[in-house]
Amino acid sequence: MRFLRYLLMASAFYSAQASAECLTRGTGDMGIIIERAAGSVQVVDRSTHQALFRVEGLGDLSHASAVYSRDERYAYVFGRDGGLTKVDILCGKITHRVVQGGNSIGGAISQDGSLIAVSNYEPGGVKIFSSQDLTLVADIPATAVNSEKRAKTVGLVDAPDQRFVFSLYDTGETWVVDMTDPAKPQIQKNLNVGKLPYDGLITRDGRYYIAGLFGQDGLALLDLWHPEKGTRLILQDYGKGEQKLPVYKMPHLEGWAMAGNRAFLPGVGHHQVLVVERGDWNPVGKISVHGQPVFVMARPDGRQIWVNFAFPDNDTIQVIDTESLKVIKTLKPGKGALHMEFAPRGEEVWISIRDKDEIQVYDTRSLELIHSLPVDKPSGIFFTSRAHTTGL
Amino acid sequence: MRFLRYLLMASAFYSAQASAECLTRGTGDMGIIIERAAGSVQVVDRSTHQALFRVEGLGDLSHASAVYSRDERYAYVFGRDGGLTKVDILCGKITHRVVQGGNSIGGAISQDGSLIAVSNYEPGGVKIFSSQDLTLVADIPATAVNSEKRAKTVGLVDAPDQRFVFSLYDTGETWVVDMTDPAKPQIQKNLNVGKLPYDGLITRDGRYYIAGLFGQDGLALLDLWHPEKGTRLILQDYGKGEQKLPVYKMPHLEGWAMAGNRAFLPGVGHHQVLVVERGDWNPVGKISVHGQPVFVMARPDGRQIWVNFAFPDNDTIQVIDTESLKVIKTLKPGKGALHMEFAPRGEEVWISIRDKDEIQVYDTRSLELIHSLPVDKPSGIFFTSRAHTTGL
Repeated sequence: MRFLRYLLMASAFYSAQASAECLTRGTGDMGIIIERAAGSVQVVDRSTHQALFRVEGLGDLSHASAVYSRDERYAYVFGRDGGLTKVDILCGKITHRVVQGGNSIGGAISQDGSLIAVSNYEPGGVKIFSSQDLTLVADIPATAVNSEKRAKTVGLVDAPDQRFVFSLYDTGETWVVDMTDPAKPQIQKNLNVGKLPYDGLITRDGRYYIAGLFGQDGLALLDLWHPEKGTRLILQDYGKGEQKLPVYKMPHLEGWAMAGNRAFLPGVGHHQVLVVERGDWNPVGKISVHGQPVFVMARPDGRQIWVNFAFPDNDTIQVIDTESLKVIKTLKPGKGALHMEFAPRGEEVWISIRDKDEIQVYDTRSLELIHSLPVDKPSGIFFTSRAHTTGL
Repeated sequence: MRFLRYLLMASAFYSAQASAECLTRGTGDMGIIIERAAGSVQVVDRSTHQALFRVEGLGDLSHASAVYSRDERYAYVFGRDGGLTKVDILCGKITHRVVQGGNSIGGAISQDGSLIAVSNYEPGGVKIFSSQDLTLVADIPATAVNSEKRAKTVGLVDAPDQRFVFSLYDTGETWVVDMTDPAKPQIQKNLNVGKLPYDGLITRDGRYYIAGLFGQDGLALLDLWHPEKGTRLILQDYGKGEQKLPVYKMPHLEGWAMAGNRAFLPGVGHHQVLVVERGDWNPVGKISVHGQPVFVMARPDGRQIWVNFAFPDNDTIQVIDTESLKVIKTLKPGKGALHMEFAPRGEEVWISIRDKDEIQVYDTRSLELIHSLPVDKPSGIFFTSRAHTTGL
């Protein structure tokens, strides 16, 4: 009887402890920050500007990115080493982890939240996992380049109607995969989209997929309302006349901003932000900036564009007014200003300052620094509001 | 000793129970549904299509609406009787409730989540409360109509840069209130915007505020990037040549949809949906539909428009393809199809069917009914993803 009581009490104590370790709170104002060098993430509270948990053991997190489950409780972190890690941000712990490829970059979550896709360089292809337990649902090998190698897959995004879209670097293709029936992926292949697509983006409404081309000038546009019509080349002068940059120096295409009916994008090898009209996708302006832009990001209401820059200008952030197309502020937050993330309604932007081991938070109206918090070599910042947005 | 053990066990049991009453879960896929007749709300899980809690005692919920705290844990419900109720959706209970006016309609939450504004008919004006505890922060009386009466306030929305915007029915004004310093609201008044503004909307990016006019044809547009320039009349034929409808039969302006660069809006007194180009705001098309449209809503990717209708056609929903501008499906879900709410990434739409006491969930790709759940005389449906969106 005593033993029984002990057992009962111990189990009550244990479950109390277990639940005490997890937070009972809304998840709408949370986020994670990648600690690149340590292979860990910090779970943060966006409202109080505080860290809640540190989660370790995520492997190589250089160029890591993350997506969220539709309930905004779980972050799926994509590592450079092929690691895919599911983190419970309410409990501050890893629930599942697989090393699914040898060398990978980027991932996406399906529209309905049930599937996680990862694009791999080696072996070239896309693997698709259950978002519940990370079991493999589909393995989609890329086109063979030769008897030993398949094309690298890049620019993977989710799209409406339960689709994933990605490009094949070596073979110049863009594939649209419909996962409505997970057991039977339907693949629609666009061949000859252009030479060496190296990255891709999808417009916020999920309609247009645009692949950057390393092997030629211009960009390949696919209208996902009409994938059967194939891609067309837009901005044919994009990159023209430039010395070839190494591929890792090419601008990230996530670094595009849409504001109203205009896109703002980093120039290639120029200290410029290009302004392009959506629809015909012709350039309508160029804005001179401090260095080679890396990320060109719109405040969610489209009123401002925030730009960071490649080394050696990565100590600077510039803010552009989207109406006057003028730089209205130059900030010097410190060396290694790597990543920016806006609050979903735009009142704040969080910026990773790697060499200061801190996150700086700016008020986007006054353009003043209002908070900072210590984070070990921070890179990507990912707020849970991404869960509700296509292509993020 | 035995007693001590009993106490310990009882307290452990009690705290287990207490924590069992609140859920430890992500809040990104939750929502509430207004039970209009009962004065209650159901808290629902969007992923499992199930009710989690029923919360009673919210007063008169005819035309009730709701907004969410930025953490997506608390719903603020605006009742017709001036009641403002804060509901904890993780614990299924009311945390605060005030009856703040005698006769009110609609409310909004500030960009930073700290303030809740409510627009009142009686006494005419806007009251602003702390989102924490619903204490009064600011009381903004409307323009006096005579010695006893102030203008009714209508069309209240939140806007970027910590602003609220609303219109004054009796005096034809639109006010922009900047709450950056809550102790000193800065009010910018636009006079003579048009006769009898009866409702308002803000575009998704937070730039344009549009007031519907009951006393004349056309709509009043205010560019919030330049509120100093005042309003201008757009769509000057809107409502023209029509028999006057009673004001409660005028289309709700929340029932506008933006898809790509086009707005879709209900015709006044016509069985039509109007198509308008953003920018010059000129009409570019009319789509004949089954009845007088009430809500005209875009699937989040802008690919489809879903329309419901006024009595006696409120047993019907039509789906319009935004490319061909054709009706592609006519659904007969049952009488009293009052409200529609899309999943934030658009794969589903939930529809209240009042006279069947149920919610129907449709797959937006197949346009088929996939789930239903019982709810007592359901009207408004509000998903937590609204927390991250301006003007919702």
